[in-house]
Amino acid sequence: MTNAESHFGGAGGTPTAAGRFVDPSTIKPHEILPGLAFQPVLGEKSLLNVVRFDAHAEAPVHQHEEEQVVLVIEGEIEFEIDGETRTLKPGDVAVIPSWVPHGARTTGTPCVEVDFFTPPRATLLDQARAALHEGDA
Amino acid sequence: MTNAESHFGGAGGTPTAAGRFVDPSTIKPHEILPGLAFQPVLGEKSLLNVVRFDAHAEAPVHQHEEEQVVLVIEGEIEFEIDGETRTLKPGDVAVIPSWVPHGARTTGTPCVEVDFFTPPRATLLDQARAALHEGDA
Repeated sequence: MTNAESHFGGAGGTPTAAGRFVDPSTIKPHEILPGLAFQPVLGEKSLLNVVRFDAHAEAPVHQHEEEQVVLVIEGEIEFEIDGETRTLKPGDVAVIPSWVPHGARTTGTPCVEVDFFTPPRATLLDQARAALHEGDA
Repeated sequence: MTNAESHFGGAGGTPTAAGRFVDPSTIKPHEILPGLAFQPVLGEKSLLNVVRFDAHAEAPVHQHEEEQVVLVIEGEIEFEIDGETRTLKPGDVAVIPSWVPHGARTTGTPCVEVDFFTPPRATLLDQARAALHEGDA
């Protein structure tokens, strides 16, 4: 089991960048498809994307090399991983390793979910860099 | 701006592992310090840790090589990054690059937050591997 002394007491190193507080809700949403909007927060090794689905919106099935971990925040969503679909609710997680096909759609209920990408998803980099200071809190 | 055709239409590759649906609430919480409990979900390149703070609990200031992105889910928390403290509420994010000192404490209100580590935090690997199927949904 994780030991508090090792978890909180590790040796130090040289920071690679400054830490930041971010309020993603102040980032201008980019509507990539009708009813589907992104608010990305860029790290050095990862990227957090707040994803807002209106009711009856869809992220088509797709695949990519970046690992993706999904956490549902509000509402519910039909989430498909490699052909298997589940209805996910707040607190539910989906783990999507490199190149695993996945997609999602809402029915009558909107949804807010968060995608964590490792490394930062290449197709979101331009938007995430442009938004880097919009979310400063 | 992100283009839907490139974002959803990229080429395919060979999956590196199976995708998974996980309900972190079914993972046995590990209380690492009084009032501070972890429920980790392991990916290949990243790790999502659900962190539950009771009221008046503390994660002492510490630092580590793994990048950490924090998202507050419920309640509120006093979060410190490199000596600067803010009160974070649901939806707020903290970005903590490698080796940046950080810590957190609750006062009268409990808090649930999610830590996203890239790569998986080494000190959580044993627990996360042991919990790998506890959270299967």
